[in-house]
Amino acid sequence: MPSSVTPDRVIAELVAALPPDAVLTDPDLLVSFHRDEADLCAAGTPVAVVRPRTTEEVAATLRIASAHRVPVVAQGARTGLAGAANAVDGCLILSTTAMDRVIEVDPVNRLAVVQPGVVNAEISRAAAKYGLRYPPDPSSWESSTIGGNVATNAGGMCCVKYGVTGEYVLGIEVVLADGEVVRCGRRTRKGVAGYDLTRLFVGSEGTLGVITEITLALRPAAEESLTLAALFHSVSEAGAAVIAIAESAAAPSLLELIDAVHLRAIEALRPMGLPASAAALLLSAVDSGIRAPADLAVIEECCRRSGATEVHVSSDLAEADALLAARRLAHPAMESLAAATFPAGVGALIIDDVAVPVSRLTELLDGVAFIAEEQKLVVGLVGHAGDGNMHPNIVVDRTDPASMARGRAAFDQIMALGLALGGTCTGEHGVGLLKREWLAKELGPTGVRLHRAIKDAFDPLGILNPGKVLPPRRSRA
Amino acid sequence: MPSSVTPDRVIAELVAALPPDAVLTDPDLLVSFHRDEADLCAAGTPVAVVRPRTTEEVAATLRIASAHRVPVVAQGARTGLAGAANAVDGCLILSTTAMDRVIEVDPVNRLAVVQPGVVNAEISRAAAKYGLRYPPDPSSWESSTIGGNVATNAGGMCCVKYGVTGEYVLGIEVVLADGEVVRCGRRTRKGVAGYDLTRLFVGSEGTLGVITEITLALRPAAEESLTLAALFHSVSEAGAAVIAIAESAAAPSLLELIDAVHLRAIEALRPMGLPASAAALLLSAVDSGIRAPADLAVIEECCRRSGATEVHVSSDLAEADALLAARRLAHPAMESLAAATFPAGVGALIIDDVAVPVSRLTELLDGVAFIAEEQKLVVGLVGHAGDGNMHPNIVVDRTDPASMARGRAAFDQIMALGLALGGTCTGEHGVGLLKREWLAKELGPTGVRLHRAIKDAFDPLGILNPGKVLPPRRSRA
Repeated sequence: MPSSVTPDRVIAELVAALPPDAVLTDPDLLVSFHRDEADLCAAGTPVAVVRPRTTEEVAATLRIASAHRVPVVAQGARTGLAGAANAVDGCLILSTTAMDRVIEVDPVNRLAVVQPGVVNAEISRAAAKYGLRYPPDPSSWESSTIGGNVATNAGGMCCVKYGVTGEYVLGIEVVLADGEVVRCGRRTRKGVAGYDLTRLFVGSEGTLGVITEITLALRPAAEESLTLAALFHSVSEAGAAVIAIAESAAAPSLLELIDAVHLRAIEALRPMGLPASAAALLLSAVDSGIRAPADLAVIEECCRRSGATEVHVSSDLAEADALLAARRLAHPAMESLAAATFPAGVGALIIDDVAVPVSRLTELLDGVAFIAEEQKLVVGLVGHAGDGNMHPNIVVDRTDPASMARGRAAFDQIMALGLALGGTCTGEHGVGLLKREWLAKELGPTGVRLHRAIKDAFDPLGILNPGKVLPPRRSRA
Repeated sequence: MPSSVTPDRVIAELVAALPPDAVLTDPDLLVSFHRDEADLCAAGTPVAVVRPRTTEEVAATLRIASAHRVPVVAQGARTGLAGAANAVDGCLILSTTAMDRVIEVDPVNRLAVVQPGVVNAEISRAAAKYGLRYPPDPSSWESSTIGGNVATNAGGMCCVKYGVTGEYVLGIEVVLADGEVVRCGRRTRKGVAGYDLTRLFVGSEGTLGVITEITLALRPAAEESLTLAALFHSVSEAGAAVIAIAESAAAPSLLELIDAVHLRAIEALRPMGLPASAAALLLSAVDSGIRAPADLAVIEECCRRSGATEVHVSSDLAEADALLAARRLAHPAMESLAAATFPAGVGALIIDDVAVPVSRLTELLDGVAFIAEEQKLVVGLVGHAGDGNMHPNIVVDRTDPASMARGRAAFDQIMALGLALGGTCTGEHGVGLLKREWLAKELGPTGVRLHRAIKDAFDPLGILNPGKVLPPRRSRA
């Protein structure tokens, strides 16, 4: 712990400054706050968990942390997949889950003001009362918090048409490292007053400040949708269909690819009659309206032309929901698969979210298959194919150095392939600990220098989520 | 000039480093590069104008400028309305207008890569060949450059449905103050690798770096549209109609308000039979499609319910284009009005672009009318009412201290009113010199501190567009 005082002294100050139930120190309780869902990323041991309910309580926490140079790791529901919310040794975990109020839904200006601990799906439910919705829908939408969504600029399934979290963040309130509170952004539809601090905080993974309030743009409620499911003999053919759809005039609101590894893993976790023999399932939807039948016909034609063996179109909402629910199970299903592949507690997943320009999608898919074969690993492929954003999920044995080495080699090869195809190392999960080295490669030295300059300007003591996104400062490493 | 060397030495170095035609020093030529279209904002005298054609030439210019601490003011077509592109004494004007290549249109990934000097409308023309378009459409779209649009995060008329410039900027190449080149952002639809430097540069008005290449998202070409024109007995009633439309389920692609001052000014500039007796004209459009007739009916009903005396619906594209062309003439028409109101060269305009939440629009409109009456000034109102973003344009006599004082008082009162209504001091024009003091009020001291920290981190010598957005550093003032 870089602080000059004892943890006990810091805890005593926190207890004095905050309500009685806001500071947790029981080691048994702390364990559950150690890490997010990124297996294999390092996690340290916190000295305490702080659960504030107000901005002032967050500010008080950060004033104390700053005074004693204690690291602070902000956390939402810990559903992240890059280790950004993992504890570092001697840190305070600042859990925002108790800041869970929907403060306001304003139907005329089509916005909602929420605290960071509100669960994603709760916002849509609050908005639905006014015929509105909040579109971004990460797979974790029933559990992940909006604060975590904003801190990682989370994506989701409807992003192919409706965009990611950051496009909906109009304004935020942030507590800075020293406890100062700043409001950025606006409630207006347009605004260009000064630098876009709001977007700078979005996706900064708790390294620049702690978000305590969010003003979100809402949209009219989604129209009913028509869905399409297409089966392919190869993942590559499914990828070709996606490229053809991107090139067409169709505007799908969803375009997901699920490979055979995931289909079987999902079916094993929750049997629902998924096609066991297909190499890939492409799942698409279009919003209803005058263009819907034509759009669906175009998507169907793209699938057939690319080699689909079966295309099924449905306006049955229950059927569509079942397919979407299956898709959302991809992550837990792969965890089960890893657990079933190896003896108890030994199987692990390296989860990736590389994104490439859609035109390069088949090259990415073929490359991942080649890498998996070369490294003799099971690598499942699932993801937001319409955005060129895939999740190659690598199954490894955490206790076998050879398996781990092959897994890491495959991961690095996939990252290198993604960048070579004009892509990015992370489409939606963020950098955290998992992608730090690849971020540096993607940015180049000048980009890293600008990142470091911003980090130093916002957090001169380096107490905010140190070591995430950027390596720790050399002087403190 | 803060440099320790003579201007001649700096010019000699530039001439040695750049192609022969890239450095202009003829004082008669320089005059035309002194200022943008923001009348009444201070403009200094540059020592030279540099017109690079490549990123490397921009980098060479900035290396020389850095070495001698010479201020650099980046300029596009100088159509800005806040003085951001105005020369400062002893500066180099870095005009990007010769960097005018559309490098690439990629129809599969729906993006264009352009140099900063490409005129906005050229991008749409290049995209149209592929059935695509670039939506943001400032009134100056036939003359303003994309570099200027990005540097100011420009708005426009279709933004009410399609959003502003920044929402289309996927990636940029930037030359930093010291001449280093950095690429930010991506070609992928999604990406969360590191801090959002792209959005930080967007709207930073040349104070953090010089943008040398832009990757823009494109959209499918616009559908044909249906238009609606409604006349009102008062501006306030037109505002009430806008609020009613915002509250409805209609999705207008355009919702503009033009008051009687502007209607008469436009008619005087180019007679086209605009309704001379109306207090306000509301202009709207919806994209064609299954919802269009219903949406138009809703908009018409909102207008009638709010007191419209006449509502005219048309699918005649020529008629719609004529009305839009009239709207685009608002700014030159008001300049003509100011010139006609006072003796030659004496009439001037203070142009504003306050934005408020749409629900507060009538309060803004009524307040501006009250302020105009109180200050005994002609204040025309025109703007993107559907976004709550209005242009109260104040007519003053630049040679009459009393008129100028009343004009500035009205401007300040309007800014204060906008902020009190939960709005922003600038919806689309940017801060430049015009809104610097109001930006500081809007941000508050902590927000200003973060702005200053970013500026210092990116431009430690303070050579990039000094005094714009933020006041000059005290040590150099």
